[in-house]
Amino acid sequence: MNRPHLLDRPHHDGSALYVSTSAPEPGERVRVRVRVPRAYDTQEVHVRQVTDGEPEFRSLRVVVQDDVESWWEGEVVCHNPVTSYRFILKGGPGGYAWLNGTGVHDRDVPDAADFRLTTYAPPPEWALDSVVYQVFPDRFARSSGRPPVADDAPDWAIPAPWDEPVLTDREYDGHQLYGGDLDGVREHLDHLERLGVTTLYLTPFFPGRSNHRYDAESFERVDPVLGGDEALRLLVREAHARGLRVMGDLTTNHTGVTHEWFVAAQADPEAPERDFYLYDESGDYVSWLGVKSLPKLNHQSGGLRERLFDADDSGVRRWLQGDDALDGWRVDVANMTGRWGAQDVNHQVARHMRKVVVDTRPDALLVGEHCHDHSQDAMGDGWHGVMNYSGFTRPVWTWLRDNDFAPKFLGSPLMVPRLGGDAVAATMDEFGAIVPWRSRAHSFTLVGSHDTTRVRTLVGEDPSYVVVAAGLLLTMPGIPMITYGDEIGMEGAFGEDGRRPMPWDESDWETDLFDAYRQLVAARRELVALRRGGLRWVHTDEDALVFLRETPEQTVLVLCARGPVRVGLPVDRLPGIERSRTVVGKPLQRNGAEATIDAPGPQVSVWAWDEQRGTP
Amino acid sequence: MNRPHLLDRPHHDGSALYVSTSAPEPGERVRVRVRVPRAYDTQEVHVRQVTDGEPEFRSLRVVVQDDVESWWEGEVVCHNPVTSYRFILKGGPGGYAWLNGTGVHDRDVPDAADFRLTTYAPPPEWALDSVVYQVFPDRFARSSGRPPVADDAPDWAIPAPWDEPVLTDREYDGHQLYGGDLDGVREHLDHLERLGVTTLYLTPFFPGRSNHRYDAESFERVDPVLGGDEALRLLVREAHARGLRVMGDLTTNHTGVTHEWFVAAQADPEAPERDFYLYDESGDYVSWLGVKSLPKLNHQSGGLRERLFDADDSGVRRWLQGDDALDGWRVDVANMTGRWGAQDVNHQVARHMRKVVVDTRPDALLVGEHCHDHSQDAMGDGWHGVMNYSGFTRPVWTWLRDNDFAPKFLGSPLMVPRLGGDAVAATMDEFGAIVPWRSRAHSFTLVGSHDTTRVRTLVGEDPSYVVVAAGLLLTMPGIPMITYGDEIGMEGAFGEDGRRPMPWDESDWETDLFDAYRQLVAARRELVALRRGGLRWVHTDEDALVFLRETPEQTVLVLCARGPVRVGLPVDRLPGIERSRTVVGKPLQRNGAEATIDAPGPQVSVWAWDEQRGTP
Repeated sequence: MNRPHLLDRPHHDGSALYVSTSAPEPGERVRVRVRVPRAYDTQEVHVRQVTDGEPEFRSLRVVVQDDVESWWEGEVVCHNPVTSYRFILKGGPGGYAWLNGTGVHDRDVPDAADFRLTTYAPPPEWALDSVVYQVFPDRFARSSGRPPVADDAPDWAIPAPWDEPVLTDREYDGHQLYGGDLDGVREHLDHLERLGVTTLYLTPFFPGRSNHRYDAESFERVDPVLGGDEALRLLVREAHARGLRVMGDLTTNHTGVTHEWFVAAQADPEAPERDFYLYDESGDYVSWLGVKSLPKLNHQSGGLRERLFDADDSGVRRWLQGDDALDGWRVDVANMTGRWGAQDVNHQVARHMRKVVVDTRPDALLVGEHCHDHSQDAMGDGWHGVMNYSGFTRPVWTWLRDNDFAPKFLGSPLMVPRLGGDAVAATMDEFGAIVPWRSRAHSFTLVGSHDTTRVRTLVGEDPSYVVVAAGLLLTMPGIPMITYGDEIGMEGAFGEDGRRPMPWDESDWETDLFDAYRQLVAARRELVALRRGGLRWVHTDEDALVFLRETPEQTVLVLCARGPVRVGLPVDRLPGIERSRTVVGKPLQRNGAEATIDAPGPQVSVWAWDEQRGTP
Repeated sequence: MNRPHLLDRPHHDGSALYVSTSAPEPGERVRVRVRVPRAYDTQEVHVRQVTDGEPEFRSLRVVVQDDVESWWEGEVVCHNPVTSYRFILKGGPGGYAWLNGTGVHDRDVPDAADFRLTTYAPPPEWALDSVVYQVFPDRFARSSGRPPVADDAPDWAIPAPWDEPVLTDREYDGHQLYGGDLDGVREHLDHLERLGVTTLYLTPFFPGRSNHRYDAESFERVDPVLGGDEALRLLVREAHARGLRVMGDLTTNHTGVTHEWFVAAQADPEAPERDFYLYDESGDYVSWLGVKSLPKLNHQSGGLRERLFDADDSGVRRWLQGDDALDGWRVDVANMTGRWGAQDVNHQVARHMRKVVVDTRPDALLVGEHCHDHSQDAMGDGWHGVMNYSGFTRPVWTWLRDNDFAPKFLGSPLMVPRLGGDAVAATMDEFGAIVPWRSRAHSFTLVGSHDTTRVRTLVGEDPSYVVVAAGLLLTMPGIPMITYGDEIGMEGAFGEDGRRPMPWDESDWETDLFDAYRQLVAARRELVALRRGGLRWVHTDEDALVFLRETPEQTVLVLCARGPVRVGLPVDRLPGIERSRTVVGKPLQRNGAEATIDAPGPQVSVWAWDEQRGTP
């Protein structure tokens, strides 16, 4: 059987073209639409939703029809907090088909890839328009007035001048201190503005005994090495004045062994902090993956709940209050929080933290770290979204990598082979379908982080692959997160080497790459469909991913190619394409009934046009 | 790419060949094995398990190797109550592959189809060896001494002589009473023994105002129309004396409007029973799918919990106590129990009922009705298994049906087309993979029930299709459930027509079909691999399903064909096949390097041989 053109497949997703709201009230009847191309001969469409654990069906009817497609419309009733639904079509090549988040299926399928609507309160309005810039405070910038690092280095630190290479031997792990600080970040906010990002996300600023500070000594003060509370206040004020949002990074799974709570718990078995931590059968404290410096918190402790969440000056609330407050939290090790053996209160913690966060600051954003399947953890009641390593980072890496690299963040002990575009698109679809569209759209997409090999390193010799990675990052659904320095081609292997100090001498930058990043960030900020549109594949093959991002008024066509490709697109299935303007890359060529995309090698192109779709 | 022979694919499932135990204690290290055929050139195998929400990996090593295959062995640590795991292989056609419950994948996949081990207590030992016979008491047999039905018919009933056709007009729905009774069942236990089944499952025997009695008036007494408590006691005693188990049917989602609790609740808003039921915003009571005669129970009520579960004489406990007690419950509408709008206490109810059931009778079996995706509801803490309509009944129906029939129990408002064997096998695999192997193995498989069109009716003219359905039923994983009368070719459409009275004049039977059922039940009871073995596909095409059921000592090869097929099997991949004996059907033909299966039309064949696999 010939594979039908991707544009000849029925389509639905959770974006505005297909659902009347992605933030329904409990009980609300949401209008849902399926777009059925003319070539997919369809006689009936029904929606199947699961209500109180039992499937029920409702018929759809055609509400708009033209030469290209029919729009079928029906209703999903949001009786439960999460309503899963999919469609069944009579017609098409198989005589019937199910349509769910992974496409059309000509046999029964389980519910895992169903579409989903949730009545949980939506994320803040600003989030979908964000481009996030991740800063690792010790490595971004050293403030101009700061004395030599040796003078104020804490006892655990090995001070290093800014231009010294990082030491990757295990005994130095986390101890080299370059002395980047919050004033340094503030002094370089112009770099963020120049790049075009809208949100600064700081990895932990709490005091610890490492340069990464994921071993907090306290959640009540900013590390004096970074400039203390006042430096954070000044940074946030200055960022806000420039229209930038600022997010912090909170570790809810564990603290450091020098945390004031743990010290108290260890000093006195009767201390109220004793039950803030977990203990194994031998009486020893439980730690994160067995790393003894990181004791694991016990979220069944009422005392912990009070100090971390509920109290007016709790770890979570304190930093979201007042004029110069953070705009949200990224939650470290969110996937393991509250989980240990038979105890699993992860969802209760996520829901409670969300409640406290939104209660303190109604427009705060809450994003959980999650490095694998997050199907059970991102239904929208807790974290607004996750860090989408599984559904974005890994597929992109397996497509664009040219070097072997530490596969840890590939979620594998093996080096996974370079895969083709079809596999990448299928993986993105499958992981995209495990959560509500809203959770996917509010998850951070990333091509690297402080925890991974640098994207510049894993693609090998050719920096143009980084442009392709950035192209996907800035044109696909999700909140793009750029790690400091990726935009200038910083290199580095997994671990300390991936956290080199940012070079501020532009002669050390790959300036073509920086320009490409700027152009892509600008495209995302300009084109609403890149931020809020649906996602429809147009063409995938080994070396090319071509897709549409669409809102009811705007259509954006994107090509990301890793090698030479020539693709012909059927003009009659892309109404308005004759009015397209080129936002990034080269203009489309018209060739009879086809619009031709020619890419001699790795490249990104973005074309946009205004087009009313789905309205009578 | 040529599709590799199914026998050349790596394999793992939850049966004894591949896991050292399916009932691990918390913390236990379970030895797991992957079987890798020689043709699948493999250099490394690792197991990935999710622990406390985070994946971790362990290497496997080869422990047994011969000309056919290698057995790789490693460990899964059952730190959490449910541990999901899968394997990653270096090698094979794609260079690497994930192996999960749906087979091998050459790209990343989510966790939905992971294998799973659970530390929840296992189901009773007898369950896996069962063949269940479902009896609808009003329609199975009228006891010999019973007076004419009109004399004792309740006011809601329309009495009918045994040989009168059922009335299918809506106004008669549930009201025609043929007067079958428990003494009648007792008098016909010889039929169950002749058929060879081991467990009698009775649909409700509680009093109600319908012939199906899913509208219970009480859970404290047996309907006098069926013979009352004493008749049940005698029936169970007699069944037990013959070595048969007996299961009842309890409706936990709702009662009838005449239930003593509901009557009390309606009579007095202050009645303690008031909060046994749910009420909507208007104050009206909530009912099952809006059917006002079936008010829905409120499982957040402590009073209900006491009367239904906890009290010594509760609805659940009362019938599991004493010498002549039931051996378990089938739970009606288990999937909706405890679910309504924002309330979802389904798992709490299932876990609590399980606890009470096992506390009352340690070897009791608990199976929940579930007509669709049960991935969230069958992890083994509540119901031991479910009625596996989604993963067995529907795939079998779509393969064997020849008539259109009411698609309600196809889970569709459309008539689904007849599908080929490949689609059937893929659907079975995918639904089989959503729960632990143990839950799958302890779920009822069925080709029809009192709730569906009769299998004899949906296959059309040719009764040999029913033999094929029965062949799958009695040779595949799961606890086979035969609905009274299927074995003699009873016909009937969905609804009342599917519940015709059992004819006891054997001239009304399809005796060839009955003999085929007897032979297949006997084969299952004889061959341990059919009851406890793993499942490996050997060959699938439009018209044939060929598979292996294997334990460490026994191999069983099964062919189920719906049309003429000729299949050659590679003898070198089926060690011991030269010693096979034919248990059902015709002998295998040897043809050089192939064993040839010839089926001129619909048929079932079963071959078995003793073979030690996986041991050094």
